[in-house]
Amino acid sequence: MQHKFPAPRIDALPLMAPQILAEPDNVPSPGVIRLNLNESPLPPSPRAIAAMREAIQYSHRYPDHSCSALAKIISHRTGIAADQIVFGNGSGEMLVAAAAVAIQPSDLAVLPQPTFPPVGKNILLAGGEIVPVPVLGNGANDVSAMIDAISDRTSLVYLCTPNSPTGGLLDRKDLSRAADTVPERCLLMVDEAYHEFGTWEGGPDVLSILAGRKGPWVVIRTFSKAYGLSGVRLGYAILSDTDLATGFSKMRSGFNVNRIALAGACAAMQDQEYLDHVLEQVSTERDRLAIRMTALGLSVFPSAANFVLARTKTPARPLADHLATHNILIQALAWPDELGSIRVTAGTREHNDAFLAVLEDFLHREAIS
Amino acid sequence: MQHKFPAPRIDALPLMAPQILAEPDNVPSPGVIRLNLNESPLPPSPRAIAAMREAIQYSHRYPDHSCSALAKIISHRTGIAADQIVFGNGSGEMLVAAAAVAIQPSDLAVLPQPTFPPVGKNILLAGGEIVPVPVLGNGANDVSAMIDAISDRTSLVYLCTPNSPTGGLLDRKDLSRAADTVPERCLLMVDEAYHEFGTWEGGPDVLSILAGRKGPWVVIRTFSKAYGLSGVRLGYAILSDTDLATGFSKMRSGFNVNRIALAGACAAMQDQEYLDHVLEQVSTERDRLAIRMTALGLSVFPSAANFVLARTKTPARPLADHLATHNILIQALAWPDELGSIRVTAGTREHNDAFLAVLEDFLHREAIS
Repeated sequence: MQHKFPAPRIDALPLMAPQILAEPDNVPSPGVIRLNLNESPLPPSPRAIAAMREAIQYSHRYPDHSCSALAKIISHRTGIAADQIVFGNGSGEMLVAAAAVAIQPSDLAVLPQPTFPPVGKNILLAGGEIVPVPVLGNGANDVSAMIDAISDRTSLVYLCTPNSPTGGLLDRKDLSRAADTVPERCLLMVDEAYHEFGTWEGGPDVLSILAGRKGPWVVIRTFSKAYGLSGVRLGYAILSDTDLATGFSKMRSGFNVNRIALAGACAAMQDQEYLDHVLEQVSTERDRLAIRMTALGLSVFPSAANFVLARTKTPARPLADHLATHNILIQALAWPDELGSIRVTAGTREHNDAFLAVLEDFLHREAIS
Repeated sequence: MQHKFPAPRIDALPLMAPQILAEPDNVPSPGVIRLNLNESPLPPSPRAIAAMREAIQYSHRYPDHSCSALAKIISHRTGIAADQIVFGNGSGEMLVAAAAVAIQPSDLAVLPQPTFPPVGKNILLAGGEIVPVPVLGNGANDVSAMIDAISDRTSLVYLCTPNSPTGGLLDRKDLSRAADTVPERCLLMVDEAYHEFGTWEGGPDVLSILAGRKGPWVVIRTFSKAYGLSGVRLGYAILSDTDLATGFSKMRSGFNVNRIALAGACAAMQDQEYLDHVLEQVSTERDRLAIRMTALGLSVFPSAANFVLARTKTPARPLADHLATHNILIQALAWPDELGSIRVTAGTREHNDAFLAVLEDFLHREAIS
């Protein structure tokens, strides 16, 4: 019997390499304005930086696999027991675990369309099939339509709030409906990668709503966005029960969370003042971007995250390519129509101004050509 | 249809949590002597520490997903093209990828027994079955017997040299035989987690031997051992061809390697003098441990790694428990017989002396009781 390498189910997967930002000397290129990855424009809390620098002296010692210090802080903050919290090397690893734990071959997963692309890949990897449900006009998940899309074969329902890449936030009513209505034989997954921004905008407390759900659920969060720790990698899952948490834990490799990230995250969570400063500054810049882009004729989706998505009147891809020639990186999406849209991270004021200047110039030249 | 969470194939997996070393303040307990995880007793190169401290200022920026700087160094060092090297958050992640890429449901994988436990777990996760082949009396993989154990259903053959937890090194003849004889429909995997120690002991150049193989192969290495970077997590796979490398890459999550580890590994690889110093010191201490343990009546396996495995005349578990009451951690194995054996990492001279003193006292009391 001839084997095929890679195995067909792996070979069929998309190669999800993110936009490569090659760093020949491991330093972000100083001449490039990165508005393409929804990173924080600000470094993490000075306390986090100090804690990480301290932690480096122990880099020859494996980290605490139980992540006990961080679990204790999150448990205290959320009221969820520490053994219902599972940590990942970025939240992406928890998305892999969720699909593996929920999906058996030929199961269906209901997803918003568009949403965070790796979610779909992980469902395919686990042997499942995707049922995409278009987001509402405001960019939020269409919970009613997603519930209607559930069938006997559905084992996973994925919500994302604020949704990436649209920025739309779910309200309490929709989340409660999902918690109550998604059948107990489905894992209800809520991706809160932009949780801190959503809360800043007055979004509902997802955990308290899910606490009333009878079936299994998982909330996914990350330190890559508001906490500004994307470079050191740390995310986590909060599970409805310890059996489910054990399932997620079985998908972990040993010592999957490095000790620098653990030290940084603990210190960052203890500096609420700095976090508020980041949220205030980033949301202010995001709103300024939205106002300016609207004034330039783009249709901007309301965003409760650290980015804006906007429909353009000319094709999005050439616009993104033009910005790249000015060393300004954004994402061009092939959605919702043939023109596409652009997703722009709220950067520093200076970086946003540079983006807006090139955008305005491009649109002006398009208009007269 | 009722679903079960976690899915049965996940639920059936062992929970592979490594020995938990809880750190309530993210600092290794200063009173505990860790000879249980095959860590380096020495911190990484001062150049690596300096590079990691520098990298922390960019912790709000995602790392270079292509790991281009490190790939270039390893490519230059090995002569293997950079696009045949895939990086993981520790080599454990590459063991997961290898099983996923090689194993289709009901495929068989031939493994030495005993070996690194996560390998078996990953094969089960991918839907495969394990064919264990006992190691030789000297603790090295029994390549002849492993080749004999290959059947039409075998798609993966896993070698580990030096083998964990026995320490036995494969010679050129056995590696060549494996490279030539393992069928082309099998992925030949060589785990070289202890590569630098094996080379220091005069072990063969695995890559040059595999270069002559017609079928697919992968070599797995890590920065957790000789380079002393276990706390920041970094491993890699070298693949026989780019198609196989693409398969491994498809299993990666976005930005799975953090930027602190990348900076540290690049700097560490450029400090050969420091690496030689570590190898010299650790191998000297390992040999001293072996001599002293032999003098105390234990049967010590010859080791080409940074640890020794020894059979005891009294049960290994109570010995390990007794050492733990003195805050000295080692591993007790339930192999090769009911007495078991102990695996002891070569630590600092001071730590090894503390271990030997408690061991001697324990054996003395056992002898007179």
